[in-house]
Amino acid sequence: MKVHISGFGPFGKEKTNPTARLIEDLDSYRIDGASLQLHLLPVTVQGIYDYATLLSGESLDEEILVIAFGLAGGRKGMTIERVAINCFDFSIPDNDGQNLIDTPIVPGGPDAYFSGLPIKRIQACWQRSGIPGSVSNTAGTYLCNGLFYLLRHYTRTSGARGGFIHVPYTGDIITDASEPTMSYADVLSAAKIAIEVAIQHPDDEVLPGGAIC
Amino acid sequence: MKVHISGFGPFGKEKTNPTARLIEDLDSYRIDGASLQLHLLPVTVQGIYDYATLLSGESLDEEILVIAFGLAGGRKGMTIERVAINCFDFSIPDNDGQNLIDTPIVPGGPDAYFSGLPIKRIQACWQRSGIPGSVSNTAGTYLCNGLFYLLRHYTRTSGARGGFIHVPYTGDIITDASEPTMSYADVLSAAKIAIEVAIQHPDDEVLPGGAIC
Amino acid sequence: MKVHISGFGPFGKEKTNPTARLIEDLDSYRIDGASLQLHLLPVTVQGIYDYATLLSGESLDEEILVIAFGLAGGRKGMTIERVAINCFDFSIPDNDGQNLIDTPIVPGGPDAYFSGLPIKRIQACWQRSGIPGSVSNTAGTYLCNGLFYLLRHYTRTSGARGGFIHVPYTGDIITDASEPTMSYADVLSAAKIAIEVAIQHPDDEVLPGGAIC
Amino acid sequence: MKVHISGFGPFGKEKTNPTARLIEDLDSYRIDGASLQLHLLPVTVQGIYDYATLLSGESLDEEILVIAFGLAGGRKGMTIERVAINCFDFSIPDNDGQNLIDTPIVPGGPDAYFSGLPIKRIQACWQRSGIPGSVSNTAGTYLCNGLFYLLRHYTRTSGARGGFIHVPYTGDIITDASEPTMSYADVLSAAKIAIEVAIQHPDDEVLPGGAIC
Repeated sequence: MKVHISGFGPFGKEKTNPTARLIEDLDSYRIDGASLQLHLLPVTVQGIYDYATLLSGESLDEEILVIAFGLAGGRKGMTIERVAINCFDFSIPDNDGQNLIDTPIVPGGPDAYFSGLPIKRIQACWQRSGIPGSVSNTAGTYLCNGLFYLLRHYTRTSGARGGFIHVPYTGDIITDASEPTMSYADVLSAAKIAIEVAIQHPDDEVLPGGAIC
Repeated sequence: MKVHISGFGPFGKEKTNPTARLIEDLDSYRIDGASLQLHLLPVTVQGIYDYATLLSGESLDEEILVIAFGLAGGRKGMTIERVAINCFDFSIPDNDGQNLIDTPIVPGGPDAYFSGLPIKRIQACWQRSGIPGSVSNTAGTYLCNGLFYLLRHYTRTSGARGGFIHVPYTGDIITDASEPTMSYADVLSAAKIAIEVAIQHPDDEVLPGGAIC
Repeated sequence: MKVHISGFGPFGKEKTNPTARLIEDLDSYRIDGASLQLHLLPVTVQGIYDYATLLSGESLDEEILVIAFGLAGGRKGMTIERVAINCFDFSIPDNDGQNLIDTPIVPGGPDAYFSGLPIKRIQACWQRSGIPGSVSNTAGTYLCNGLFYLLRHYTRTSGARGGFIHVPYTGDIITDASEPTMSYADVLSAAKIAIEVAIQHPDDEVLPGGAIC
Repeated sequence: MKVHISGFGPFGKEKTNPTARLIEDLDSYRIDGASLQLHLLPVTVQGIYDYATLLSGESLDEEILVIAFGLAGGRKGMTIERVAINCFDFSIPDNDGQNLIDTPIVPGGPDAYFSGLPIKRIQACWQRSGIPGSVSNTAGTYLCNGLFYLLRHYTRTSGARGGFIHVPYTGDIITDASEPTMSYADVLSAAKIAIEVAIQHPDDEVLPGGAIC
């Protein structure tokens, strides 16, 4: 199985992005039977369409899994996104200075796509590991949601599974406890848990024995 | 130097209290030149007065430092308290079922005492270690503030230094990211930093070289 | 034009619902050229499907507008919803005791529908009137989102326009300022503004002169 | 009885201050047996010391009541402050550009003063009128707390009663529901209730019949 993992670079008023660090640190991460492809994406409209083009060119002969990570400042833990909507509506411009308001991501595309990841199972496995996390019902209307929509749209016919995970602020970004944070060590653990669970389980079905994780 | 460290047991709807775990884990902690006395306090009015009596009986011949820890659910990081006020005003009863409303902690005592810890230095040292933390201007009106007031009141003539530190929820208490949390590992590191800084520095004076930590 | 307006009765731990009061108070409200049909809905799965059936039976010969109101405790002002998703995932049972987890609202239906209301124009008109409000990207996964999805699904072929507006807590529900509230007078004004704007303008196009409201 | 009422002008990034508007609107407000003196204060250290000097010059022959209002953005309703602490610790400079860090308001003064207003009665009367409000345990460490401390310190020997009330953002300041707000009409009602209650009742004693309001 080929597993595409992406993170974003810094944007807005932040100088770092924990999901960029994730991509760096996952370089040495090995999972039997899976080939991890790591992608650090710029926070630009162009960047996410380019990545979608790359994903859409994948061979249909291989099983593909796509997991995208992004930063969502203000959240109280890891959040796995339930749904991507066909709408760009930025509150700040992207890193190219482009500002899109009420613009479809894919003109004529469906209004939304649900995640293709086992979102409840991933949440349950985070919880079992003592990592705060929840399911989120909105990925916003910026590039995170845009990437999530595109990765679902351009892999919809190939059978690839995929979804999006939001990471909260880490302690190196918010040092004065003015916003909720999570330690980067927990973020890295949570990312590995999510990747492993998504590789092993295509959906949220209850496991033999009754548990979900 | 004798260092009295206290934490509280569980209260309200929580089944655990990270400050109880702190007391357990600090048992193996050694600091040169300091004798740590660890105290797990019940969440009762009686319990904090008993502890104050113990503190007030300390010999004046030895240097004494008192650091009390308590849980403040909802906070976004470690918080070191600036001031204790002479008021019990509970929103839930204590673990003995006692509910005190608008009641002085020490009738006739001063309205408040400032902390005797180097609060800005401790905050700066947390920040330097990547641990989210801030100074808080209210310890509430429950037993945490009560203990803080009592420890200041009953050591005011002996020259003992002391203060109070609030710990946020940890991931084992809030598993669904509905409230901000901090990893227990970070809480333990933050507690050790605070204890060491308080032992070494009586106040917030700027260090040689210009830094505070 | 026929305008269907709905609110919900109380649910969960609340004894009142400001959207029930809206339905009562709009009884004496008259708009030229519009016939208002007011509906107080029970907070049950059955109730929203019954209402959808009623809406789907409307004649195609008349212009129809559907505006549904619901309570969203914790929000900081009026929120007009952008999108309804095809998912029931309750955190509390409905008033019949039914608890639906990860269940499609319309099996085989599209993942989501965008609102058919001029959401940015309504937001701008609230702002112009000094009423706090914003566009929301999630209506949740309870009955509010369910009703929103159903009203879009069952009027999708008839050309009816429609959408959903969430109302925050009012001061009679939260009296201790523990959650954000809005005065009921402002909620009523906001509802009337939304109804009038939706009647007059099918979309968010910029008005002659450059303003949106 | 002479009643000194104060509000502040704009500060920080806000262009208006609802407590300045209060001072304007209370100009036409009459209460039998009370002479209202209205003061619009600049948001400067100098301004609050000047006002304290004015208050300290009041004749001891007349009964004096002092109620100060200030803005506390982010709060969810009216808040009546319990305690003023002897500490300036600004996060932004005052309107003169002065920035005070960890500085006593009155060197050698007591660490804190409790409010001289019937805080629980005022809270209860707000609640009875459907106005969201609570008691706050910190007035911060900026000029609001500074004024509160000074008005208590400089009237401590004269028997004057006095205290401080924080007002949340109003809808004209925060128009996008990104922070909690209260309608200005409710703020004005709340201010009048507080003034009347403080004139009539020196403390929180239970009224004949058992109610507090």
